[in-house]
Amino acid sequence: MAKLQCVTFLSDFGLADESVACCKGLLLRRGVSVPLLDISHDIQPFDIITGGWMLAGSLQYMPVGVHLAVVDPGVGTVRRILAAQASRGDMIVGPDNGLLLPALERLGGVSSCHAVETGRFELDAASPTFQARDIMAPVVADLIGGAPLESVGPEIAAGELAPYPAEPPVRSSARVNGSVVCIDTFGTVRTNIPWSWFQEKGGEAIRISCGWLFSIPVGRTFADVSSGEMVVLEDSWGYVSIAVNRGSASDILGFKAGDLISVEFTMPGSTPPQ
Amino acid sequence: MAKLQCVTFLSDFGLADESVACCKGLLLRRGVSVPLLDISHDIQPFDIITGGWMLAGSLQYMPVGVHLAVVDPGVGTVRRILAAQASRGDMIVGPDNGLLLPALERLGGVSSCHAVETGRFELDAASPTFQARDIMAPVVADLIGGAPLESVGPEIAAGELAPYPAEPPVRSSARVNGSVVCIDTFGTVRTNIPWSWFQEKGGEAIRISCGWLFSIPVGRTFADVSSGEMVVLEDSWGYVSIAVNRGSASDILGFKAGDLISVEFTMPGSTPPQ
Amino acid sequence: MAKLQCVTFLSDFGLADESVACCKGLLLRRGVSVPLLDISHDIQPFDIITGGWMLAGSLQYMPVGVHLAVVDPGVGTVRRILAAQASRGDMIVGPDNGLLLPALERLGGVSSCHAVETGRFELDAASPTFQARDIMAPVVADLIGGAPLESVGPEIAAGELAPYPAEPPVRSSARVNGSVVCIDTFGTVRTNIPWSWFQEKGGEAIRISCGWLFSIPVGRTFADVSSGEMVVLEDSWGYVSIAVNRGSASDILGFKAGDLISVEFTMPGSTPPQ
Repeated sequence: MAKLQCVTFLSDFGLADESVACCKGLLLRRGVSVPLLDISHDIQPFDIITGGWMLAGSLQYMPVGVHLAVVDPGVGTVRRILAAQASRGDMIVGPDNGLLLPALERLGGVSSCHAVETGRFELDAASPTFQARDIMAPVVADLIGGAPLESVGPEIAAGELAPYPAEPPVRSSARVNGSVVCIDTFGTVRTNIPWSWFQEKGGEAIRISCGWLFSIPVGRTFADVSSGEMVVLEDSWGYVSIAVNRGSASDILGFKAGDLISVEFTMPGSTPPQ
Repeated sequence: MAKLQCVTFLSDFGLADESVACCKGLLLRRGVSVPLLDISHDIQPFDIITGGWMLAGSLQYMPVGVHLAVVDPGVGTVRRILAAQASRGDMIVGPDNGLLLPALERLGGVSSCHAVETGRFELDAASPTFQARDIMAPVVADLIGGAPLESVGPEIAAGELAPYPAEPPVRSSARVNGSVVCIDTFGTVRTNIPWSWFQEKGGEAIRISCGWLFSIPVGRTFADVSSGEMVVLEDSWGYVSIAVNRGSASDILGFKAGDLISVEFTMPGSTPPQ
Repeated sequence: MAKLQCVTFLSDFGLADESVACCKGLLLRRGVSVPLLDISHDIQPFDIITGGWMLAGSLQYMPVGVHLAVVDPGVGTVRRILAAQASRGDMIVGPDNGLLLPALERLGGVSSCHAVETGRFELDAASPTFQARDIMAPVVADLIGGAPLESVGPEIAAGELAPYPAEPPVRSSARVNGSVVCIDTFGTVRTNIPWSWFQEKGGEAIRISCGWLFSIPVGRTFADVSSGEMVVLEDSWGYVSIAVNRGSASDILGFKAGDLISVEFTMPGSTPPQ
């Protein structure tokens, strides 16, 4: 088994209050001594799609470790808390709402998954509104300290997990459908459509419909188009994205995480971008 | 005396400029080798009430350490800089404007307090607008390095400290008065009213007046009410809070830190929430 | 040669997506074990002037180290990637667009500079839109691990570097011209005009023109003027800044990074602030 070399933490808690610090303080108090690395805490509240996609996009660049991921609108309800192991050796702790699935897949798939037995924490007066601090962070501390995954609670089958709440990509001969999975800091619209599907077709522009019909040229980097113009790019993780050079594609197109996106190839010279 | 195991840092400096990094760089240069943990730097500028409450809420989950806390509208004036020790063993360095008091109380009360003798730093060309970097951070480095608290300057009595600038909670048979102490990332309104005062009464809803009269049901977690509805909860630190499931209570109620809040119990079925 | 004691990181990536975490994860995977310190990732997208100024302002307080700085509108184009060494011993890795220059000067000047040979990374499928993760961070890891600067690629003369894109300060007997280089969290307008130029004149107010004519008194700290009033201060790095006590000078004056600012001295009692 790969050595666990770090603890990472992703949440929608923001950094304006003390929630993130409480979780990290608790990890230190429980003796965690590996590097503690924040992925992001500025996921929009309750945005499981963005949180899950960013977790996947970052963990593939992290050392093997134990990862805490909390975007959890159902906190304190009957939804399960999971501790899942990926084939690469990483363990991820978080709510059973689909948040963990893209990362588990990106790390080689689920090798085993357990539901955290929360009863022992509740005896200890865990707050029903802050299970990240009172249940999940202690589980992370146990796992990084060497506790076996099966010690957290009963095993559950991977097929029983709540699904990731974005439509997966599908393709026909004429068209590819997928989902917007996040908007980055620069306003770039990122999708779950593999870039390789595009490369196989070899088109030089795509056409998307969102109110208007947009035909957008394919480029290699932002500066391949003039300032303010749209370009279709392979994003830095191998998926289709739509960007504006020195501007925000999401402001123009109005997309948000979870929106369906349907694209078709066009030959160069057809309907110009609007 | 408990071993000092971490340095924490809270401020209203934001993370958009290099101020926080300067303080942390200085700590590294002065040889600080314990973990350095940010609590929050996104306290609203000059909001001593929120900063003080979040400091208290996080330090109780931290290992014993030396804590730097800076929300300091009076920087460079005659207000004192404090280095105070709590009964748990922690030391807190920051301005004498009430910011440190809730945390000192939460950690068992003030065991001793000294005013930092700033003269020796001013000889060294300390900037009057950035005493966090030029005076307080060096004091933190000295303390974590083993300097005794009394080396920083003259002792002052706990009773002489500037008070925390929020009204403390008080109760009569019919009513509880307290203060809003912060608004969290999700818009939840947090107060300084102990939840235990409510539990003793056993009501099932509270009534508050803020322009309108609101009657708000008591719940255990956000999802105990429908999406968009208000609920009174024990927050994750044992105080009364008002939340909206998947929404923002502060947007509806208009509360901000420092506002007085007066609540009374109502029996179930009375005036519905508006 | 000074020991390299930290890695720092500044960017305009924001913290809302996983970009920063990917770079830091990669550093951990490449065995970086010195402290990893964020300067800021909330530089406005593409704002080289602010990013460069804050890099300079923070590195002078850091231990000697390897510094990654990325504000890079030309990512993926022919602009060079630099690895430059300052006289103090630090190495800075980032794009050749002027971003690194103020810091290199503040650390004693450029002692040698090399252009990163990107070919070997591109063989490795580096993303053209995320060279911070795929080229620059690996170079940082190599340098902190002891690789010599010249191993990254061919040497280039300091005189060939792209200039810092703000007008440098100049003075005549009556007037000083310079640039706004950043706006801090509190809205304070920071310039690149050395405070020492003012001290030599000994004025008690300055007059600036920006639409209106403003005469602003000189003070030592914010609270030297009433709440809401403007004051000219030496900022915490030794440059001229304009602040409002408990308010935002940039909101009043409308300045942004890169704007030219022209000031003249006035005697006390002349045109009052508006």
